[in-house]
Amino acid sequence: MTTIGADQAISTASARIVAWENGRWTERQDTLAGEEPLEIRLAGCSVAVTMRTPGNDFDLAAGFLLTEGIIHRRADIASMAHCPADEHGLQIEPNIVNVNPSDPALVNPDRWRRNFFATSSCGICGKASIEMVRQEAPAIRSEARISDDTILRLEAQLRAAQAVFSQTGGLHAAALFDLRGHMVLLREDVGRHNAVDKVIGAMLHRDRLPLDTSVLLVSGRASFEIMQKALMAGIPIVVAVSAPSSLAVELARESNMTLVAFLRYKEGQGRFNVYAGAERIVGAQEAAIV
Amino acid sequence: MTTIGADQAISTASARIVAWENGRWTERQDTLAGEEPLEIRLAGCSVAVTMRTPGNDFDLAAGFLLTEGIIHRRADIASMAHCPADEHGLQIEPNIVNVNPSDPALVNPDRWRRNFFATSSCGICGKASIEMVRQEAPAIRSEARISDDTILRLEAQLRAAQAVFSQTGGLHAAALFDLRGHMVLLREDVGRHNAVDKVIGAMLHRDRLPLDTSVLLVSGRASFEIMQKALMAGIPIVVAVSAPSSLAVELARESNMTLVAFLRYKEGQGRFNVYAGAERIVGAQEAAIV
Repeated sequence: MTTIGADQAISTASARIVAWENGRWTERQDTLAGEEPLEIRLAGCSVAVTMRTPGNDFDLAAGFLLTEGIIHRRADIASMAHCPADEHGLQIEPNIVNVNPSDPALVNPDRWRRNFFATSSCGICGKASIEMVRQEAPAIRSEARISDDTILRLEAQLRAAQAVFSQTGGLHAAALFDLRGHMVLLREDVGRHNAVDKVIGAMLHRDRLPLDTSVLLVSGRASFEIMQKALMAGIPIVVAVSAPSSLAVELARESNMTLVAFLRYKEGQGRFNVYAGAERIVGAQEAAIV
Repeated sequence: MTTIGADQAISTASARIVAWENGRWTERQDTLAGEEPLEIRLAGCSVAVTMRTPGNDFDLAAGFLLTEGIIHRRADIASMAHCPADEHGLQIEPNIVNVNPSDPALVNPDRWRRNFFATSSCGICGKASIEMVRQEAPAIRSEARISDDTILRLEAQLRAAQAVFSQTGGLHAAALFDLRGHMVLLREDVGRHNAVDKVIGAMLHRDRLPLDTSVLLVSGRASFEIMQKALMAGIPIVVAVSAPSSLAVELARESNMTLVAFLRYKEGQGRFNVYAGAERIVGAQEAAIV
């Protein structure tokens, strides 16, 4: 796969603001998380527009196409590039990424509209949404195991790595770890789902899918959409710093995924909740809770 | 406007989980934020499917249609109802809301697809996104003013009201206040944008738009989408507990909105940042910062 044009660094913007603190006003410069629309095209056809933080756009486009079930492997992508802004191709348009598929049959706009939330014969409900996802992605079969101690150490690594990339306080982060808790990569975005797509797309570019010996950590909540994306990439273990939704838990249980949430660790004191797949956590067996 | 069928209370789910704390495993019951798809229809035509927390669906549908520029006032809605699940209409389908418009000309699917992020003649970028929104919504002209002290007290009210509704830790909240800081209403959802649509839809049902003497508080970050929705409802002042994005700040500045973020208040100590429209905050004039 060839990519044309350099991918940008994650973008921030600077703004003059006024800060109020205990009755005192001061003016100062502030750093903001960048947000711009990105149009993702397949063979020139518009698939989606998402509001994202510019940077790692090729990862985002590849990850989105995979987690939405439009492409299935790295070989499905022949090339990708930012689009030219004019007919001479001298200037590139940084907010449009076009993906050229290796097989023209992948360009099937009717299929893109049939998204995972679509009405099924049994109506529209969480159960139908899960069934739609499950038609695209089989249940996880990974024998991956992780220790409680490894889980506890994930968040501190995320925070340390985020501090390097961003001082805006406005970015969601998603990071991939191996089963011993070593961080493989981290991506950031104003949109939680985009951060996950960037992580998965980066690994797709490296031809590392399925990610069946990986742990995905998300800085916020675990929604259905996050679990769906992880499942499409074959990730067996998802850890969220904050709360999961009911449908995220249901999808994890139906798909044999491990879902950990409410991860807290500070000065030797730690806790987390396991909503699905506790058997993958070393120690759970001995505690007789699975 | 008539509504058929009772609107549900906000939904939660209960799940058996295992909690790990400092090496000890315990099993217990946990409460999860509900998440299910909702299909919004206009005269039977599907407009959108959103993953939402069931409850206040009529507010969500009305708010969504207004903030997306599909309807413009309460009188545009003739009636709304959950759809019947069978031909006899004996059972209702709780995940589909159909809105019957008072004017058939409002049913224009071509228009719905032209969303605010669409490519304009100048390409696709944040500036184009802002221009698209501004074509639908003029700049705010409200002379509303709010005191710094009132801003500081908003979050505590939100937290107190949320504690009543939810112990899941998984719900975003949006609340509307008057200029003296009295809470008018609060809505919750797994989706931040849905919580805002529910607030605006509830006020549309009460025929209270434009909300030009109101303050909107959101429990999380302020993105472009949140500011767009507030602007469509004529809300002059938006306060976010967490960070704003670059495009949220730009839209606020272009539209004469006030945007406050990073609101913190505890035991008499407080602070917040003003990213746009500081002149609406009493005291800013005297401090000579506007």
